[in-house]
Parts: sequence; C-alpha cells; structure tokens
Amino acid sequence: MPIKAAVMTGPEQAIELWQLDDPKLEPGSILLETVASEVCGTDVHIYHGRLAGVPYPIIPGHISVGRVLETRGVEADSMGTPLAPGDLVTFYDVHETCHACYFCTVAGQPNRCPSRRVYGITYSAHDGPLGGWAERIYLKPGVQTLKLPEPLTADDVIGGGCGLFTGFAAVERSDLGMGDTVLVQGTGPVGLSAIAFSALRGAATVVTIGDPAARLELASAFGADVTMSLSDVPPDERDTMIRDLTNGRGVDVALECAGNPAAIPEGFKLLRDGGTYVIAGHYTDVGEATINPHIDINRKHADVRGRWGLDFSHCYRALRLLAKHHDMLPFARVIGGRYSLDEAGEALADVEALAVTKAIIAPSPR
Amino acid sequence: MPIKAAVMTGPEQAIELWQLDDPKLEPGSILLETVASEVCGTDVHIYHGRLAGVPYPIIPGHISVGRVLETRGVEADSMGTPLAPGDLVTFYDVHETCHACYFCTVAGQPNRCPSRRVYGITYSAHDGPLGGWAERIYLKPGVQTLKLPEPLTADDVIGGGCGLFTGFAAVERSDLGMGDTVLVQGTGPVGLSAIAFSALRGAATVVTIGDPAARLELASAFGADVTMSLSDVPPDERDTMIRDLTNGRGVDVALECAGNPAAIPEGFKLLRDGGTYVIAGHYTDVGEATINPHIDINRKHADVRGRWGLDFSHCYRALRLLAKHHDMLPFARVIGGRYSLDEAGEALADVEALAVTKAIIAPSPR
Amino acid sequence: MPIKAAVMTGPEQAIELWQLDDPKLEPGSILLETVASEVCGTDVHIYHGRLAGVPYPIIPGHISVGRVLETRGVEADSMGTPLAPGDLVTFYDVHETCHACYFCTVAGQPNRCPSRRVYGITYSAHDGPLGGWAERIYLKPGVQTLKLPEPLTADDVIGGGCGLFTGFAAVERSDLGMGDTVLVQGTGPVGLSAIAFSALRGAATVVTIGDPAARLELASAFGADVTMSLSDVPPDERDTMIRDLTNGRGVDVALECAGNPAAIPEGFKLLRDGGTYVIAGHYTDVGEATINPHIDINRKHADVRGRWGLDFSHCYRALRLLAKHHDMLPFARVIGGRYSLDEAGEALADVEALAVTKAIIAPSPR
Amino acid sequence: MPIKAAVMTGPEQAIELWQLDDPKLEPGSILLETVASEVCGTDVHIYHGRLAGVPYPIIPGHISVGRVLETRGVEADSMGTPLAPGDLVTFYDVHETCHACYFCTVAGQPNRCPSRRVYGITYSAHDGPLGGWAERIYLKPGVQTLKLPEPLTADDVIGGGCGLFTGFAAVERSDLGMGDTVLVQGTGPVGLSAIAFSALRGAATVVTIGDPAARLELASAFGADVTMSLSDVPPDERDTMIRDLTNGRGVDVALECAGNPAAIPEGFKLLRDGGTYVIAGHYTDVGEATINPHIDINRKHADVRGRWGLDFSHCYRALRLLAKHHDMLPFARVIGGRYSLDEAGEALADVEALAVTKAIIAPSPR
Repeated sequence: MPIKAAVMTGPEQAIELWQLDDPKLEPGSILLETVASEVCGTDVHIYHGRLAGVPYPIIPGHISVGRVLETRGVEADSMGTPLAPGDLVTFYDVHETCHACYFCTVAGQPNRCPSRRVYGITYSAHDGPLGGWAERIYLKPGVQTLKLPEPLTADDVIGGGCGLFTGFAAVERSDLGMGDTVLVQGTGPVGLSAIAFSALRGAATVVTIGDPAARLELASAFGADVTMSLSDVPPDERDTMIRDLTNGRGVDVALECAGNPAAIPEGFKLLRDGGTYVIAGHYTDVGEATINPHIDINRKHADVRGRWGLDFSHCYRALRLLAKHHDMLPFARVIGGRYSLDEAGEALADVEALAVTKAIIAPSPR
Repeated sequence: MPIKAAVMTGPEQAIELWQLDDPKLEPGSILLETVASEVCGTDVHIYHGRLAGVPYPIIPGHISVGRVLETRGVEADSMGTPLAPGDLVTFYDVHETCHACYFCTVAGQPNRCPSRRVYGITYSAHDGPLGGWAERIYLKPGVQTLKLPEPLTADDVIGGGCGLFTGFAAVERSDLGMGDTVLVQGTGPVGLSAIAFSALRGAATVVTIGDPAARLELASAFGADVTMSLSDVPPDERDTMIRDLTNGRGVDVALECAGNPAAIPEGFKLLRDGGTYVIAGHYTDVGEATINPHIDINRKHADVRGRWGLDFSHCYRALRLLAKHHDMLPFARVIGGRYSLDEAGEALADVEALAVTKAIIAPSPR
Repeated sequence: MPIKAAVMTGPEQAIELWQLDDPKLEPGSILLETVASEVCGTDVHIYHGRLAGVPYPIIPGHISVGRVLETRGVEADSMGTPLAPGDLVTFYDVHETCHACYFCTVAGQPNRCPSRRVYGITYSAHDGPLGGWAERIYLKPGVQTLKLPEPLTADDVIGGGCGLFTGFAAVERSDLGMGDTVLVQGTGPVGLSAIAFSALRGAATVVTIGDPAARLELASAFGADVTMSLSDVPPDERDTMIRDLTNGRGVDVALECAGNPAAIPEGFKLLRDGGTYVIAGHYTDVGEATINPHIDINRKHADVRGRWGLDFSHCYRALRLLAKHHDMLPFARVIGGRYSLDEAGEALADVEALAVTKAIIAPSPR
Repeated sequence: MPIKAAVMTGPEQAIELWQLDDPKLEPGSILLETVASEVCGTDVHIYHGRLAGVPYPIIPGHISVGRVLETRGVEADSMGTPLAPGDLVTFYDVHETCHACYFCTVAGQPNRCPSRRVYGITYSAHDGPLGGWAERIYLKPGVQTLKLPEPLTADDVIGGGCGLFTGFAAVERSDLGMGDTVLVQGTGPVGLSAIAFSALRGAATVVTIGDPAARLELASAFGADVTMSLSDVPPDERDTMIRDLTNGRGVDVALECAGNPAAIPEGFKLLRDGGTYVIAGHYTDVGEATINPHIDINRKHADVRGRWGLDFSHCYRALRLLAKHHDMLPFARVIGGRYSLDEAGEALADVEALAVTKAIIAPSPR
C-alpha cells in the first residue's frame, strides 16, 4: 500500500501530497505508523530556503512518534527495553554519525560530524519515507529508538517536539546549581522546556521574559516563578525586577531561547558576575549582536556556551523525567493545532505567523 | 628613615616624589625593601583616569618583588616555606576579600567581592607605602606572600609582572587538552605568558598573532611554533595559515590577550566548532565588538570564557613552573627598560608608547 | 542575666548544666536566643571521646536556629538580606578559616584549613556560649548567617540539622545527571536529605536501602521511589531489584550515607560501569573495608568521591530549595524528640540507641 | 602469498606458527605490512587464561605499527591526513563499538559497550590476520588509523605500546593542575608514560616509586624529578620523603600504574587531603586491597578515579606530543628485546619474567 507524504518540493513552493512506495525492510530496520510529527521553526526556515544543503524535495518532520508496525530482527529499543508491534516509539533524528573523525572523537562534537544525516532535513523524498510528514516512517538500521515510557502519549512528546529536547539540552549545558536563579529568554517551545527543566534541575527561582500572554501563562504552568512580558514590561523595569530578585546581582544562569539578536545584550546585562549564559535559540542566522568584551565577558568573568543540536542521551533523559513528572510538564497543552497531511501547508503558515505555539502533523489517529 | 615613593596625584597629573613615614609594624605584618615593581597597562589606564574608584593620590605598582627587612611574628610564607630577613618575596596584591559574601562563597568569584583591596590601585598614598613604586612596601597582616623559589630573581618575575600571572590564569581557564592547537592573540606580556604556559600545559602547536617584530621573536623564544604579524600578514592569509595547520578546522583553543575589540571577531572565526575562547585581554573598556550569535556561538557550540583577575593559586603555580622551566621562560628578556623612582613618569610614557614591552621600576639595587 | 548551657565536661562524663556570663558584644557580632539545636551522630562520637582535639568542657550543638536578640552594626545576613531583632537565623558553624594557606587557596579545600574553628566542637565552654546547647549563642564577627526564608521554621531546618546540609553536599558532589537512577545507602538524617535532594536535582529514580520501617516510610515521603529494608531484604535480592530497575546495569550514582563499612562493597557492586560513588557517611573511623581495585574501580571506570564537611554555599542553596519545596521536604517529621537543656543527656542516649532519628534541643519556646 | 602469524592456541599452550590466507579487501579497508607489534602484560594474562571470553586460537598484538601496502578507497587517516602506500600507520585496536547503546550514549562509556571488538584479543585466528603478531594486518572498514607524524618511527610508538596510551589516559583522567606534585606508582611502560605526560602536562614535581634500578633510570630520563626504589627505600622513608617535598601535605595527584594491590593503601596514605588518585594499573584481578573509608576517602575528601581502556583521542593526542617532544620521550629506549615471529613464545616468557620492560615483535624489517 503506498505511503502518503507531504512534500516540500523547493523553497517557497507549495507543499505537495505524494504517494511513496512501501520501503523494503533491511535487517535491523523498523517501520512505524506515524502518530504525530511536528512543525518546528526550522521547518519554516527550510521552507524559505534559509538552510544550506537541503536536498529538495524533502519530507519534513524530524521529531515524530510512531507505532511499531514491523521490525526486522529488532527486539528492543536502543536502551534495551523490549519492543513489539503496537508500541509507541520516538527516535533520534540524527544518525550515520561516523564516530571516527576528528569531531566525533577528539573534539567530542559529533553534532559537527560531516557524515551525519538527519531525518526530515537531509534526505530527499526520493530516498523514501524518511521524515515525519508521512503516514509511515522507515527507520534505517542503526537509528536510535526509545519506547515511550508509561504514561506518555504521542502528544506529551510532540507537544514539545524538538523544542523539548533543545530546552533540556540547554539546561544541561548550563550546569546550573541547586538553588540558582535562572532567567529564560523566550517562551516558545524551547523556552517552555528550558523553564520546566530548570525547575526540575533544582533552580530556586525561574524567571522568564516572553510573549504573548498565552505563552506566559504556559510558562507559569511549566514552572516559571516570575514572568515578564517582552512587549509590556520595558527593559528598565525588567532590569529592576531582576535586581530586586537577586539582591542587585543579576541571575546566576541565563538561557537564551529567543532566537532574536536583541536578546543577547539584555542577557549579558542581567547576568551576574561569574554567571553562565547559554545561547541555545539561534538555530538560524537572524543577524548580529553587539557586545562589549570588557563589560560583558572579561570583567564579568562570564561563561558563555553555545549548544548545537542534541545527543541521544538528551532524548532518553528528558523522557525519563517527562514520565516521572508528567503532571508538571503539560506539553500536550502547548499544541495549538492538529493538522492532517493535506493541511501541512496551513500548519506551516500558522507556525510562521505565531498563530500556534506548536503545530502537530497527525497522519493517523492517536 | 623616610620612604621615597613615586605618587600619581591625579588623572594626567605629573608623577611626584613623596617622602612617607616608616610604617609601624602590626603583628603578622612584613616590611619589604622593594627590589623591582612594574609598570603595566593598567597603570597607563589609571594615569588617564579610566578606572573607576581610584583614590588619587596613589602609589602605583601592584606586582612587586622585595627583600624582607623585618617581620612581626611571621616565620613562613603563605605556603609554609620558612621566611627570613634577606629573602626575596612576591605577594598577592589583592587582599581583604571578605570570604563571606555571595560572590566569595556561593558564586565562587572572590574577584568580584566588594570588600577586596588591591595594592597599588585602591589605596591612597596617605595610607602608607602600599604600592610598589616606593623604596619599601608594607605588607599588612594577611597579605599572601611567596618566597621566590630557586633560582628565580626579581627580574624573572617582574619581567612578566601581572601579565605573567594573567597569561597563566587564561591558560588555566581554557582547560586546554594535551595535543591541542592553541591560538594566542597578542604578544604583550599577557600574550607571551599565555604562549609559554600553553606550551607547558601540553599544547602540541601554539600559534600567535601579534606585533612588532621584536615581540614576535620573543614569542618564538617563549614557545610559539608559528608567529604571524598582525600588520604584515593580512587577515585572509592568517585564516589560510590556521586552516592549513588544522586540516581546515580552526584552532581548538583561542586566548584573547590583545585588548583590542577587533580581535574578537577574528578569534571566533579562527576557532573550530566546539572550541574554547578565553577573553583575558580586555581589562579596560576599549569599545564594542560585533558577533553573530548563530555563527559564532550557537552553531559553533562554542565555549567563551571571561577571566577576571587572579587567585593566589595562580601566583603559586606559575612560580613553581617558572622555577622548573627557568630557561624556557626568559621573562627577564621582556624587560625593555629599568627606571628609578625619579624616572617613573618616563617609564609610564614609554609603556604607553609601546617603546618597551615591560618597564620595571627598580628603587633598590638587585 | 546568666546563660544556661548543657556542657559535656569530658568523654563519657555526665552532661552538666552551667551558668555562663553574658558575652560582651564586639563590633560585627550577633547575639541569638536559641530556638533549636540538634543532637547529631557526631555529638555521640564526641561524647565517647572518638574525635581528636576536642577541648572539653564544651557546649555541643553545631547547627542551630536562633532568634536575633541584638546585633552590633550588622544590618544584613551574609547574603545581603536585611536582618533585625526577632528574625530567625541559622549560621555556618565553621569560621576563622584562614583563606590564605595551601588548603584554602591552592587546593581549594578550606575544610582542611588548620585554622578553622567550629561552633559546638572546637570551643571550650570557658570561651563563652559558642554551641547550640545553650539559651543564647554568641555569633562572633565574621560568622556567616542566613535569615530563614519564608515559610521556614526552626523545626524545618533542625529536623534535618547538619544531616540536611551533608546530604545536600553529597548530592552536589555527585554531579548526578537529569534522568539518572540513584541509590542512597542509609536512611538517617543524611540519607533522607540525600534522597530528597537527589529527587529535586532531577534523578528519575531514587532507590534506598535502610532501616527501620519508620525511616523507610520517611524515605518514601522524602522522594524515594523504591525502598529496601537492610534487614529484611537479603543482599542477593537487593542486587536483583537494582538490576531489574536498570536493565541489568546498576545505578548511575550511589551515595553512601550509612556510616558502616559494610555498605562500601555493596555500593561498588550495585554501581554501573562508569558510575559515581560518593562516600559521605563516614564521619568517624568505624573500621576498614575490602575492595577489589580491578573490579570495583579500574575496570568499572568508577568515580569515587569523598565529601568532607560543608561550604556555606550548601547552607544557602539548601535553604532556598527547602523554602521552595517546603511540602516535599518534611524535615520537621524527622524530629523524634524535643528536649530541654536539662534533658540533653537523655537526648544523647536516645540518639545513640537509634530511638529517635533526630533529637532536638529546644532551650526556648518556638 | 600466505601470511605467517604467531598464534596462541589456548591457555598455557605453546605458541604456534600458522600460515593464513591473504584477506580479500573490502571497501574502506587497509592492508598493512607489520613493522612492529608489542608483547604487553595483558598478553601474559591471556596466555594464562586469566581474561574471560578470549576465543582461542588468537593472534595476539593489539597495538602495532605497519606500513601501508594497499587500501580500498581510503585516502586519508581518521584525522584527515593523506595516506598512501608506504606510509607508517598505527591504529586503534578497539572498533565496532555500537555508538547506540546505553554505555555508548547515555553513560558516555564506550569502553563498556558490549559490541566492541579488539584486535589481538577478541578475534579468532580463523577470522584472519586481526592481531599484530603476523606479517600483515588487515584493517577492516571503520578501524581508526593514524599516520605517524614526523619524525616518529615504529620503535618510538611500540617502545611505549599500549602502556604509552594508558599512561597518557591516566594523566588526562587526573585533571592534574599546573604546578602540582604528582606521584606515579610503578615504572613499567604505563608508569614511564604517566611520568612523561605528567611532566608535559605541567606538573612541577614528579615523584615515582618503582623498581628495578634500570627502570628508575628510565624514569629519570622520562622526567621524574625524584625516584624511590620500592625494594630499597622502606615505606616509612618514602612517606618521609613525600612529606618533605610537600610541606607535610602529601601529593596533589597520585597515579597507580603498578598493578599491585599493595600500592593502593600507600597511594591513599601519600595523597594530600582533597587530592586525586587515579587507579590505572589494575587491568587484571590480582587481589583485594583494604581501605579505610573514613580516613582514606571521606575525611580526605579524596577523588578516586578508575580509568578503563582508551579512546582514540588518546592515541591522537599522545602521538602529537610524542612528535613534538621526541627527545624528551625516549620510548625506543624502553625496548628490551626485539623478537621475530618464531621467537614470540620467548618474548612472552621474557616479559613475564620482567627480563625486559618492553618486548617487541618485529615480523618485518624497520
């Protein structure tokens, strides 16, 4: 039976519905029935042709949850948990990392490995159903999988999507200390996740600056102790509020999840001397920022850390905590719209217009 | 017998020679006969009034070496090495750190403690001989001291001066790995020290960009494997040379010791993905720099670290290595001029004009 | 008005009630009315003369909470929070650390500084009310203080006592990762605290081995997901349970809070390859343990970390979290008995007999 | 042309000479002419059947240097350096690590990956020339290779053998600080390498305890500042010498490279409070050691770290430094005997009898 897929045929071209052949399963592979995939900000950038090296036509959707239809000799997920048809799984979109080159070995930066391939981004639609905007997804041998732990549903995971894991990775990268005061800049999916995991990591106070009001409410639900509207609270007042919270010192840790260069100078300003600033929201080039090396970094003895991409460990660890603290991490509430494959273009437009925080593509019933 | 001191009476005022009363020694104090003090870049900034909170008139000179004249109940240096009159000692210019406030305790950043006082910078000349541009220096109780280990002389230490310790601290802050390729930006005292300690820390290749030719020769003597002239080698060629050295990847670690905002974008550009960039040369505000958060930090997964001030441990550790690798660290060669107290103003002018790499004030015979 | 104090006059001597003179307040000092102090395991060891260098007679009680009676020029606690008579404060029992010696500076181990003094342990009763088993406590200038944050009471803090901070420090020392499985050995005050802070730090599963049943119930209340009775569940079954929980691998992190050498081999056995084992319960010499360097450390690529004493930062951070997660950290429930100064000897006997988990000395009404 | 190989047919069976078929080269593979392989302590253990899971008959020899005979589509080594027939290369004996399991991903411990295979240890001689005691070695696709950097020869590398990399890894694992005092226990290949890299890493003083005299002389040549004979200097004197060197404190870092349980208690004793102790010499179970958890770990606030196996990065980094500091690392001098394939049994016996520090198997001319 052919597989229906929503295909991005080229920059700023209409999304087309294609019929793909069913893949021939290799040993070690898995075929999933797609339950939910996501539309993330990167998909909007790809749509506008802002990412280099994308082999259009592609099937977007890098983070997805599917139901196991069939496996070829695979009896457990990558962590050793038994896997059977019918089980819900998610998978790590990055694979074919070489584990032999300078970046993989000496630098410890597999995310910069030139061999890596990414579901939903670096595969042509001619290569098969290798993206989540399709009725079925073919997991090649070696793709790392995770059975969803109880009581998680597809919505719990895809409501966060790659933002869930990116926010987690930003918190891990910060090495925040128990009892710290943390500022999260941005209240999109990455920011909401960063808020939640900052709180679960032991921050005593989590402050966020974002917009609009609906997202600030979500921020509170995810664990923000203080929320400030970017548009309603002027920068001076934001500064005053942070000083009041910290005996004048600034925050211990700031997490940039805004993707706006204007956030950078404010982040430096609100950071205390000796604090840590993680830049995790700039997944595309949206322009430059001006810093003062003396004031912002040298005299401040600052630690500034970029966080590019994820490791599989982030997926594993994040889902373990999501399962444990299910009630405190209502990612399903972040879902603003549920779209069929036919509506993928509309979903993309809604995400770009910020009409929804998270749009999900749901080719099959939950 | 009164103490002759060279006093900076105010911003851009002529240096005056004063006669100070001999201090009354408190229990736990030490009186030194000054053998050598330094004129460092910070002194030039203080002369121009660019440092906030300086209580003019002051006796400059924060890093100095002296001969013990007299002690009050002090029988060993801070590390437990016996101390007697006639011994050469250096001391840590920062003291009265409170060890109780937020910065001292929770943040682990005693260099941001509001109580700290600094010899040669935060004391008025009316407070006594609390700076190195004087015939004698009074070490208050609690000032941390180090007897110079064999075979070090005052020139070995003051030839590096505070740059010696700052360069050391920059290397330590970088966590450079054995076998790494390191770029040092700048070949002043901080840069030369960073070159030397990068090599002693286990870098496989140390590259430097600096000027003028005489300093590049010193850089080679201190362990640089490759030197590039800032003025003669255009930026494109510098980039090409770094790419050739690193299979196209960029350096593992970059150490900014230049104090020029223009160095910042070049440092980011020459850094490999996942590399570490220490900003250690911006001890004064000399302007802003433009960065691209996506390209320079986020996608690069960069680690950017400011380094403000020193710990006493840096002094101890640096002198241990200086004594061991005495021949490989010819800091005495960095001394471009030796000035009496009467010539302090001239020394300051020569340092500002870059006529000498390191000027020393030598009130007493070696 | 004289100060009543319970004094330990010598090893295995009856506790006496003394009357002490009211101290003369120096600038920077604070006088507290003691609300609650603790009887901890160390006090039992001191009572039996097992700690070297104790200057009997002493007033025990190193962690205490008091109400500010009077201050001399002190307007804020050490973190900058305003302080006034009537406020409840706790303080860091260690002080007079020199911040200049090898251990304080180069080694970064102020807890090994030879100059440090400790309230309730290293002061003679002749020195004044410098321990918590007294109606009032004199805080010398420089003692670090913390105003209890809302809504904490003395019971919330002293119900944990020094175990609260020691457990916190053990968790911090472990660098446990979000989503980890953690084993806590021991369910006394240190173990309960380690359980609670492991959960608040982001552990996905916290397992504990301890006794008796009442403490295992407390362990569950503090966040343990799985509890095993040391006496009822034989070692083989404990091993099986841990293997079942971890796909056969063992725990990511083990925290020894048992103070029994028999716990050490079991901790190594239950630790996964590459895991981290913190030894935090051996505050006194209770005998040796046998390990296999090949199996337990080298082949396991283990990380084994001792944790001696506390930093003030642990107190600050722990109280911040205690205030935030007040309901999840019911330390007040750990209090098994409340004793007046007259009953201090009885309190000591009850702690030694394990008749109570935590005994508090309450010289004044709450 | 058939390949001659020395085969260990079973525990304590005579080494046999076999003739193997020339392998059929797969895409991505390399065929080497063996220049030198090693006999290491592990080979002795394998000979006695002390390693679990060895599929006798095997061709021993895990670390080797060969000359490239032929490649299938391989134009560069794993770091991107061009590779051509005639070049000398070494390779990382471990491969087929899965990079997907819990140990590879979440735990960051690929050395505990159940899928890993090791040249010279986990392959049957029936699988082909997959060990260094053979005229030629077949490098399967994906085996990580390093072209020897100028001016290194096979002897420079195999004179250290796996001890060279293990010693390097032990130093890296210790995080030793610049200016530290380091104790290396053991003066076999691992110990000598640890001495050399401790010095190159920036230790100020390197002390070693070992035997016999010839090895202590090598230790000095490799950078030991102080050597003590295990048999001639009694433990009390060793303790006194260490105390004298460290103002009574003990060493900052101890590296166990002795493989003898008796070294463990001495290592703990000689370590300063807050020091780091790396256990890197216990590659086989040679018995238990007794420690005191209170004195050795808890009160000492010790950091004890096992180091199991290597990463490829250690090989790359070590060779970079070996090439740079060629004269200071005379590993070729460690070679005590050079044996043909026919003499492999004799080589094994000499290593076991400690008649040579390092025996090399040289099937082909240098």
